[in-house]
Amino acid sequence: MLIRELTPTECADVLQRTILGRLACTRDGYPYVVPVHFSFDVERACVYGFSAVGQKVHWMRANPRVCLEVEEVTNKDQWRTVLIFGRYEEIQESPEEAEARQRALDRFRQRPEWWLPAGATVESRHPEAAVVYRIQIERVTGRQAMRRTLPETPGINRQRD
Amino acid sequence: MLIRELTPTECADVLQRTILGRLACTRDGYPYVVPVHFSFDVERACVYGFSAVGQKVHWMRANPRVCLEVEEVTNKDQWRTVLIFGRYEEIQESPEEAEARQRALDRFRQRPEWWLPAGATVESRHPEAAVVYRIQIERVTGRQAMRRTLPETPGINRQRD
Repeated sequence: MLIRELTPTECADVLQRTILGRLACTRDGYPYVVPVHFSFDVERACVYGFSAVGQKVHWMRANPRVCLEVEEVTNKDQWRTVLIFGRYEEIQESPEEAEARQRALDRFRQRPEWWLPAGATVESRHPEAAVVYRIQIERVTGRQAMRRTLPETPGINRQRD
Repeated sequence: MLIRELTPTECADVLQRTILGRLACTRDGYPYVVPVHFSFDVERACVYGFSAVGQKVHWMRANPRVCLEVEEVTNKDQWRTVLIFGRYEEIQESPEEAEARQRALDRFRQRPEWWLPAGATVESRHPEAAVVYRIQIERVTGRQAMRRTLPETPGINRQRD
Protein backbone atom coordinates (compact mmCIF):
# COMPACT_ATOMS: atom_id res chain seq x y z
CA MET A 1 0.00 0.00 0.00
CA LEU A 2 1.12 3.52 -0.81
CA ILE A 3 0.12 6.60 1.18
CA ARG A 4 0.23 10.09 -0.30
CA GLU A 5 -0.86 13.54 0.83
CA LEU A 6 -4.07 14.93 -0.69
CA THR A 7 -4.04 18.34 -2.37
CA PRO A 8 -6.25 21.13 -0.91
CA THR A 9 -8.71 20.61 -3.80
CA GLU A 10 -8.90 16.88 -3.12
CA CYS A 11 -9.51 17.58 0.59
CA ALA A 12 -12.37 19.95 -0.35
CA ASP A 13 -13.86 17.28 -2.63
CA VAL A 14 -13.94 14.77 0.23
CA LEU A 15 -15.55 17.34 2.56
CA GLN A 16 -18.26 18.12 0.02
CA ARG A 17 -19.13 14.46 -0.48
CA THR A 18 -19.24 13.63 3.24
CA ILE A 19 -21.72 14.44 6.02
CA LEU A 20 -20.40 12.35 8.94
CA GLY A 21 -17.21 13.15 10.83
CA ARG A 22 -15.67 12.76 14.27
CA LEU A 23 -15.17 15.96 16.21
CA ALA A 24 -12.43 16.10 18.82
CA CYS A 25 -12.09 18.76 21.48
CA THR A 26 -10.05 19.03 24.65
CA ARG A 27 -10.24 20.42 28.17
CA ASP A 28 -7.68 20.39 30.98
CA GLY A 29 -5.48 17.96 29.07
CA TYR A 30 -8.26 15.44 28.35
CA PRO A 31 -9.43 14.70 24.80
CA TYR A 32 -13.03 13.96 23.82
CA VAL A 33 -14.25 12.72 20.42
CA VAL A 34 -17.78 12.10 19.15
CA PRO A 35 -19.44 11.52 15.77
CA VAL A 36 -21.16 14.57 14.26
CA HIS A 37 -23.03 15.42 11.10
CA PHE A 38 -21.72 18.48 9.29
CA SER A 39 -22.05 20.54 6.11
CA PHE A 40 -19.02 22.04 4.38
CA ASP A 41 -19.22 25.64 3.11
CA VAL A 42 -16.35 25.97 0.65
CA GLU A 43 -16.94 29.69 0.04
CA ARG A 44 -16.61 30.60 3.71
CA ALA A 45 -14.03 27.96 4.63
CA CYS A 46 -16.13 26.52 7.42
CA VAL A 47 -18.33 23.58 8.33
CA TYR A 48 -21.71 23.87 10.05
CA GLY A 49 -23.12 21.63 12.73
CA PHE A 50 -26.10 21.40 15.04
CA SER A 51 -25.97 20.03 18.56
CA ALA A 52 -27.74 19.61 21.83
CA VAL A 53 -25.94 21.35 24.67
CA GLY A 54 -23.99 18.60 26.36
CA GLN A 55 -20.37 17.83 27.22
CA LYS A 56 -19.11 18.52 23.68
CA VAL A 57 -20.60 22.03 23.59
CA HIS A 58 -19.52 22.82 27.15
CA TRP A 59 -15.95 21.82 26.33
CA MET A 60 -15.82 23.70 23.02
CA ARG A 61 -17.15 26.84 24.74
CA ALA A 62 -14.29 26.54 27.22
CA ASN A 63 -11.68 25.77 24.52
CA PRO A 64 -12.75 26.41 20.90
CA ARG A 65 -9.81 24.57 19.30
CA VAL A 66 -11.17 21.49 17.53
CA CYS A 67 -10.12 18.78 15.09
CA LEU A 68 -12.65 17.17 12.73
CA GLU A 69 -11.77 13.83 11.13
CA VAL A 70 -13.53 12.67 7.96
CA GLU A 71 -13.12 9.35 6.15
CA GLU A 72 -13.95 7.87 2.77
CA VAL A 73 -13.25 4.17 2.99
CA THR A 74 -13.54 1.97 -0.12
CA ASN A 75 -11.86 -1.00 1.54
CA LYS A 76 -9.06 -1.66 4.01
CA ASP A 77 -6.30 -0.47 1.72
CA GLN A 78 -8.11 2.13 -0.35
CA TRP A 79 -9.22 5.09 1.71
CA ARG A 80 -8.97 8.84 2.12
CA THR A 81 -8.92 10.72 5.41
CA VAL A 82 -9.16 14.47 5.86
CA LEU A 83 -8.43 16.40 9.06
CA ILE A 84 -9.75 19.90 9.70
CA PHE A 85 -8.08 22.00 12.37
CA GLY A 86 -10.16 24.98 13.35
CA ARG A 87 -12.12 27.05 15.80
CA TYR A 88 -15.60 26.44 17.21
CA GLU A 89 -18.01 29.38 17.02
CA GLU A 90 -21.70 29.37 17.91
CA ILE A 91 -23.96 31.13 15.44
CA GLN A 92 -26.26 33.19 17.63
CA GLU A 93 -29.88 34.14 17.02
CA SER A 94 -28.88 37.80 16.64
CA PRO A 95 -29.34 40.37 13.83
CA GLU A 96 -25.58 40.28 13.13
CA GLU A 97 -25.62 36.51 12.67
CA ALA A 98 -29.02 36.24 10.94
CA GLU A 99 -27.57 35.72 7.47
CA ALA A 100 -24.97 33.19 8.62
CA ARG A 101 -27.56 31.30 10.64
CA GLN A 102 -29.94 31.19 7.67
CA ARG A 103 -27.12 29.90 5.47
CA ALA A 104 -26.39 27.10 7.93
CA LEU A 105 -30.07 26.22 8.42
CA ASP A 106 -30.67 26.12 4.65
CA ARG A 107 -27.95 23.51 4.38
CA PHE A 108 -29.45 21.43 7.18
CA ARG A 109 -32.87 21.58 5.52
CA GLN A 110 -31.44 20.20 2.29
CA ARG A 111 -30.70 17.10 4.33
CA PRO A 112 -33.64 16.89 6.74
CA GLU A 113 -32.46 13.64 8.31
CA TRP A 114 -29.69 15.64 9.97
CA TRP A 115 -32.10 17.11 12.44
CA LEU A 116 -33.04 13.75 13.81
CA PRO A 117 -30.07 12.70 15.92
CA ALA A 118 -29.52 16.08 17.56
CA GLY A 119 -33.27 16.63 17.80
CA ALA A 120 -33.81 13.33 19.56
CA THR A 121 -31.18 14.18 22.12
CA VAL A 122 -32.56 17.65 22.59
CA GLU A 123 -36.09 16.41 23.04
CA SER A 124 -35.12 14.08 25.84
CA ARG A 125 -33.10 16.76 27.68
CA HIS A 126 -33.85 20.46 27.28
CA PRO A 127 -35.90 21.45 24.23
CA GLU A 128 -34.43 24.96 24.27
CA ALA A 129 -30.80 23.88 24.64
CA ALA A 130 -29.62 23.41 21.05
CA VAL A 131 -26.93 25.32 19.19
CA VAL A 132 -26.03 25.93 15.57
CA TYR A 133 -22.27 26.25 15.21
CA ARG A 134 -19.56 26.67 12.64
CA ILE A 135 -16.01 25.40 12.67
CA GLN A 136 -13.89 28.08 11.08
CA ILE A 137 -11.23 26.16 9.18
CA GLU A 138 -7.62 27.17 9.85
CA ARG A 139 -5.83 24.20 8.29
CA VAL A 140 -6.74 21.06 6.36
CA THR A 141 -4.67 17.97 5.68
CA GLY A 142 -5.54 14.76 3.89
CA ARG A 143 -4.13 11.36 3.06
CA GLN A 144 -4.93 8.72 0.52
CA ALA A 145 -4.00 5.06 0.65
CA MET A 146 -3.81 3.10 -2.58
CA ARG A 147 -2.94 -0.42 -3.56
CA ARG A 148 0.59 -0.79 -4.79
CA THR A 149 0.10 -2.03 -8.36
CA LEU A 150 2.72 -2.99 -10.90
CA PRO A 151 2.69 -1.03 -14.17
CA GLU A 152 0.78 -2.63 -17.05
CA THR A 153 2.98 -4.82 -19.25
CA PRO A 154 0.82 -5.69 -22.29
CA GLY A 155 3.54 -7.74 -23.97
CA ILE A 156 3.77 -10.13 -21.07
CA ASN A 157 -0.02 -10.34 -20.76
CA ARG A 158 -0.27 -11.23 -24.44
CA GLN A 159 2.27 -14.01 -24.07
CA ARG A 160 0.17 -15.42 -21.24
CA ASP A 161 -3.06 -15.52 -23.27
CA MET B 1 -35.52 8.39 17.59
CA LEU B 2 -34.73 7.32 21.14
CA ILE B 3 -31.26 7.38 22.66
CA ARG B 4 -30.30 5.24 25.64
CA GLU B 5 -27.09 4.49 27.52
CA LEU B 6 -25.43 1.12 26.85
CA THR B 7 -24.60 -1.18 29.75
CA PRO B 8 -20.92 -2.08 30.38
CA THR B 9 -21.57 -5.54 28.85
CA GLU B 10 -23.10 -4.01 25.74
CA CYS B 11 -20.10 -1.66 25.41
CA ALA B 12 -17.75 -4.66 25.64
CA ASP B 13 -19.76 -6.47 22.96
CA VAL B 14 -19.36 -3.53 20.56
CA LEU B 15 -15.60 -3.37 21.26
CA GLN B 16 -15.19 -7.08 20.57
CA ARG B 17 -17.00 -6.86 17.24
CA THR B 18 -15.13 -3.77 16.02
CA ILE B 19 -11.58 -3.21 14.76
CA LEU B 20 -11.69 0.42 13.54
CA GLY B 21 -11.91 3.42 15.87
CA ARG B 22 -10.89 7.06 16.04
CA LEU B 23 -8.23 7.89 18.57
CA ALA B 24 -8.12 11.40 20.02
CA CYS B 25 -5.22 12.87 21.93
CA THR B 26 -4.29 16.37 22.98
CA ARG B 27 -1.27 18.59 23.49
CA ASP B 28 -1.02 22.21 24.65
CA GLY B 29 -4.78 22.66 24.35
CA TYR B 30 -5.02 21.32 20.78
CA PRO B 31 -6.93 18.13 19.96
CA TYR B 32 -5.90 15.59 17.31
CA VAL B 33 -7.95 12.65 16.06
CA VAL B 34 -7.07 9.90 13.58
CA PRO B 35 -8.51 6.51 12.57
CA VAL B 36 -6.78 3.48 14.10
CA HIS B 37 -7.17 -0.27 14.04
CA PHE B 38 -7.35 -1.86 17.48
CA SER B 39 -7.96 -5.14 19.30
CA PHE B 40 -9.93 -5.27 22.55
CA ASP B 41 -8.60 -7.43 25.42
CA VAL B 42 -11.56 -7.87 27.75
CA GLU B 43 -9.54 -9.78 30.36
CA ARG B 44 -6.98 -6.99 30.77
CA ALA B 45 -9.35 -4.07 30.18
CA CYS B 46 -7.24 -2.62 27.41
CA VAL B 47 -7.06 -2.26 23.64
CA TYR B 48 -3.91 -2.86 21.58
CA GLY B 49 -2.71 -0.87 18.61
CA PHE B 50 0.28 -0.66 16.30
CA SER B 51 1.58 2.56 14.85
CA ALA B 52 4.36 4.26 12.99
CA VAL B 53 6.04 6.95 15.07
CA GLY B 54 4.43 10.17 13.89
CA GLN B 55 2.48 13.06 15.39
CA LYS B 56 -0.01 10.78 17.16
CA VAL B 57 2.70 8.84 19.01
CA HIS B 58 4.71 11.99 19.82
CA TRP B 59 1.63 13.61 21.33
CA MET B 60 0.57 10.52 23.32
CA ARG B 61 4.10 10.21 24.70
CA ALA B 62 3.82 13.82 25.89
CA ASN B 63 0.27 13.37 27.27
CA PRO B 64 -0.99 9.78 27.58
CA ARG B 65 -4.66 10.69 28.16
CA VAL B 66 -6.65 9.48 25.16
CA CYS B 67 -10.24 8.97 24.02
CA LEU B 68 -11.12 6.21 21.53
CA GLU B 69 -14.44 6.44 19.69
CA VAL B 70 -16.02 3.33 18.12
CA GLU B 71 -19.19 3.13 16.04
CA GLU B 72 -21.60 0.47 14.84
CA VAL B 73 -23.91 2.13 12.35
CA THR B 74 -26.85 0.21 10.88
CA ASN B 75 -28.43 3.31 9.36
CA LYS B 76 -28.85 6.98 10.22
CA ASP B 77 -31.17 6.38 13.15
CA GLN B 78 -29.98 2.98 14.34
CA TRP B 79 -26.47 3.09 15.71
CA ARG B 80 -24.28 2.43 18.73
CA THR B 81 -21.27 4.48 19.77
CA VAL B 82 -18.79 3.58 22.49
CA LEU B 83 -16.19 5.89 24.01
CA ILE B 84 -13.13 4.63 25.84
CA PHE B 85 -11.28 7.02 28.14
CA GLY B 86 -7.86 5.75 29.05
CA ARG B 87 -4.11 5.95 29.16
CA TYR B 88 -1.61 5.32 26.36
CA GLU B 89 1.26 2.97 27.21
CA GLU B 90 3.90 1.64 24.83
CA ILE B 91 4.66 -2.07 25.14
CA GLN B 92 8.42 -2.23 25.06
CA GLU B 93 10.64 -4.96 23.66
CA SER B 94 11.86 -5.82 27.18
CA PRO B 95 11.82 -9.03 29.28
CA GLU B 96 9.20 -7.49 31.60
CA GLU B 97 6.87 -6.75 28.70
CA ALA B 98 7.58 -9.88 26.63
CA GLU B 99 4.36 -11.63 27.58
CA ALA B 100 2.19 -8.54 27.04
CA ARG B 101 3.86 -7.84 23.72
CA GLN B 102 3.33 -11.43 22.58
CA ARG B 103 -0.33 -11.22 23.59
CA ALA B 104 -0.78 -8.05 21.51
CA LEU B 105 1.13 -9.44 18.53
CA ASP B 106 -0.89 -12.68 18.58
CA ARG B 107 -4.04 -10.61 18.23
CA PHE B 108 -2.60 -8.64 15.33
CA ARG B 109 -1.60 -11.84 13.58
CA GLN B 110 -5.15 -13.16 13.81
CA ARG B 111 -6.02 -10.24 11.56
CA PRO B 112 -2.99 -9.91 9.29
CA GLU B 113 -4.50 -7.06 7.27
CA TRP B 114 -3.96 -4.85 10.31
CA TRP B 115 -0.29 -4.69 9.65
CA LEU B 116 -0.75 -3.11 6.28
CA PRO B 117 -1.72 0.49 7.01
CA ALA B 118 0.85 1.06 9.75
CA GLY B 119 3.41 -1.00 7.86
CA ALA B 120 2.99 1.04 4.70
CA THR B 121 3.54 4.24 6.60
CA VAL B 122 6.54 2.81 8.40
CA GLU B 123 8.10 1.59 5.21
CA SER B 124 7.97 5.02 3.63
CA ARG B 125 9.45 6.73 6.72
CA HIS B 126 11.63 4.89 9.20
CA PRO B 127 11.47 1.10 9.12
CA GLU B 128 12.59 0.87 12.74
CA ALA B 129 10.18 3.47 14.09
CA ALA B 130 7.05 1.48 14.91
CA VAL B 131 5.44 0.94 18.29
CA VAL B 132 3.05 -1.56 19.81
CA TYR B 133 0.86 0.13 22.41
CA ARG B 134 -2.03 -0.49 24.72
CA ILE B 135 -4.72 1.87 25.90
CA GLN B 136 -5.43 1.00 29.50
CA ILE B 137 -9.15 1.54 29.89
CA GLU B 138 -10.23 3.75 32.79
CA ARG B 139 -13.84 4.41 31.79
CA VAL B 140 -16.24 3.33 29.04
CA THR B 141 -19.54 4.87 28.00
CA GLY B 142 -21.90 3.94 25.19
CA ARG B 143 -25.09 5.08 23.53
CA GLN B 144 -27.63 3.44 21.32
CA ALA B 145 -30.09 5.16 19.01
CA MET B 146 -33.26 3.34 18.03
CA ARG B 147 -36.29 4.16 15.94
CA ARG B 148 -39.25 5.30 17.97
CA THR B 149 -41.95 2.74 17.13
CA LEU B 150 -45.57 2.78 18.26
CA PRO B 151 -46.78 -0.32 20.11
CA GLU B 152 -48.59 -2.90 17.98
CA THR B 153 -52.35 -2.42 17.96
CA PRO B 154 -53.74 -5.55 16.25
CA GLY B 155 -57.38 -4.50 16.64
CA ILE B 156 -56.87 -1.32 14.68
CA ASN B 157 -54.82 -3.10 12.03
CA ARG B 158 -57.55 -5.69 11.59
CA GLN B 159 -60.15 -3.00 11.03
CA ARG B 160 -57.98 -1.55 8.27
CA ASP B 161 -57.63 -4.85 6.40
